[in-house]
Amino acid sequence: MRAIGKLVVIGVGLIGGSFALALRRGGVTAHVLGIGRGKANLDAARRLGLVDRALTLDEHWTPELRDADLVFVATPVGEMPGLFATLGQHLGPNTIVTDAGSTKQDVIEAAREHLGCALPRFVAGHPIAGTEHSGAAAAFEALFRERQVVLSPLPETDAAALEFVTVCWERCGASVRCLDAARHDAILSAVSHLPHVLAFALMSELASRADAAEYFDLAGTGLRDVTRLAASHAGMWRDVCLANRHALRRDIARYRQELDRIDALLERRDGEALESLFARARSVRDAWIERASGTDEA
Amino acid sequence: MRAIGKLVVIGVGLIGGSFALALRRGGVTAHVLGIGRGKANLDAARRLGLVDRALTLDEHWTPELRDADLVFVATPVGEMPGLFATLGQHLGPNTIVTDAGSTKQDVIEAAREHLGCALPRFVAGHPIAGTEHSGAAAAFEALFRERQVVLSPLPETDAAALEFVTVCWERCGASVRCLDAARHDAILSAVSHLPHVLAFALMSELASRADAAEYFDLAGTGLRDVTRLAASHAGMWRDVCLANRHALRRDIARYRQELDRIDALLERRDGEALESLFARARSVRDAWIERASGTDEA
Repeated sequence: MRAIGKLVVIGVGLIGGSFALALRRGGVTAHVLGIGRGKANLDAARRLGLVDRALTLDEHWTPELRDADLVFVATPVGEMPGLFATLGQHLGPNTIVTDAGSTKQDVIEAAREHLGCALPRFVAGHPIAGTEHSGAAAAFEALFRERQVVLSPLPETDAAALEFVTVCWERCGASVRCLDAARHDAILSAVSHLPHVLAFALMSELASRADAAEYFDLAGTGLRDVTRLAASHAGMWRDVCLANRHALRRDIARYRQELDRIDALLERRDGEALESLFARARSVRDAWIERASGTDEA
Repeated sequence: MRAIGKLVVIGVGLIGGSFALALRRGGVTAHVLGIGRGKANLDAARRLGLVDRALTLDEHWTPELRDADLVFVATPVGEMPGLFATLGQHLGPNTIVTDAGSTKQDVIEAAREHLGCALPRFVAGHPIAGTEHSGAAAAFEALFRERQVVLSPLPETDAAALEFVTVCWERCGASVRCLDAARHDAILSAVSHLPHVLAFALMSELASRADAAEYFDLAGTGLRDVTRLAASHAGMWRDVCLANRHALRRDIARYRQELDRIDALLERRDGEALESLFARARSVRDAWIERASGTDEA
């Protein structure tokens, strides 16, 4: 592939930092500039070898966009419209832009509104990878290895830009698939955004009890796993949930119906139906885990 | 401690098998007899060295109770009333009985009804330990190490029987605490039974979609962890949910209210309240995980 002379990563956290690190270590990029809000996190990113240089968003960073080959936007999706407005004014004529947002329709809408004539060089993307940890210190080179990355190209998307971003992800060890943005958002709502909400809700409900400490004292790995996603970054998930709220609210409603069904089975003590619901859930999960060959999303 | 001359384990699965194995390996028991429904599972238990001998429930096993020092009942709780009726008729005069049921009030009620004059030698118990796997093949010696075991003694419980069961668990590496049965059931409903129901419900809801395969194809470790408990034994959890249905239905209702609150925040796009709910859930969880020193429940 064409080497990346200069990579600009906006948002040097778990995702942005791991992307930069994988491409640096792979010899794919000669120079990485990290851009972010917090000075301390950027210092950590430099110390950890994720980036060569770093500038905060308060510093004079926009001239750096001019000669960038690739700009990777890995901030919470709520910050992307404002960033795209800036990118639209300062991108170089050959700079390719991609993102790592967990929702795609809202990001594409922001790109359409703000990127102007750079829109064909924008490739909407979402690496299905992560952990519940956040920040530059959480980044690691292998995060995307054997994971899937969804790209949602537009009719306008330049084929060379799509190919370039695809190869970058492949160099991180990921496999790339293209998927319509609306379909992506509907699926991710059910398999990722809803599970996050369920985990946050469970921790929140338990924490609200006056005697919560005694409850947690008798809790074990079951509760720990079910709620692992509740350790995720609150601001990032606020943005994801708001951006994808239409699909997410439909999924919450469907989930509530399922809970109601179980509650009704308990009320009428229908052990047979309860067992068959549990057994079916188990067998579907077993089959999925069996099939799964390493997709990964926090 | 007084060595166990003969230990009878009824239900040689993950819990019963691990208990037997830990006591055998620790030299605490001279002889273990496994009793169970399935011949294949009992054969595996013998092959794996969990038990010395095994008999199915269809065989002539009740005379074996006469000279048993300890009977450990580790079946689904729904089977305990019938088993206790048999134990009440055949237990030796010095045999101590304990159980591993995930609910305590129903088990105690069954013991009161059926154990007769052996009731003082019954010690209701619940090891807060497990994995999502089941059967003799899932058993391992260290399952209870650094885990908690709750015992719920009755006013009638013989102090020596309580002490004996306590020491057995300590020899498995567990720490023992006594807790009122109703309090146990209320707490475990929230921190274990509800999480299981939430996991089963999520898998069940996703599996019901016509295009479920495409959803699972894009799911990763987030969904995998949230639903890990849905791989648990369906019959066992049917029994637990039915036995503890009053507490569980209250907890399902509380959980639904929390989901409704989040849904209302999404509806009015209240990002600030959403973020603060998420952040509080995260910080409560972080503090709990920090504090937790190894309690474990599947």
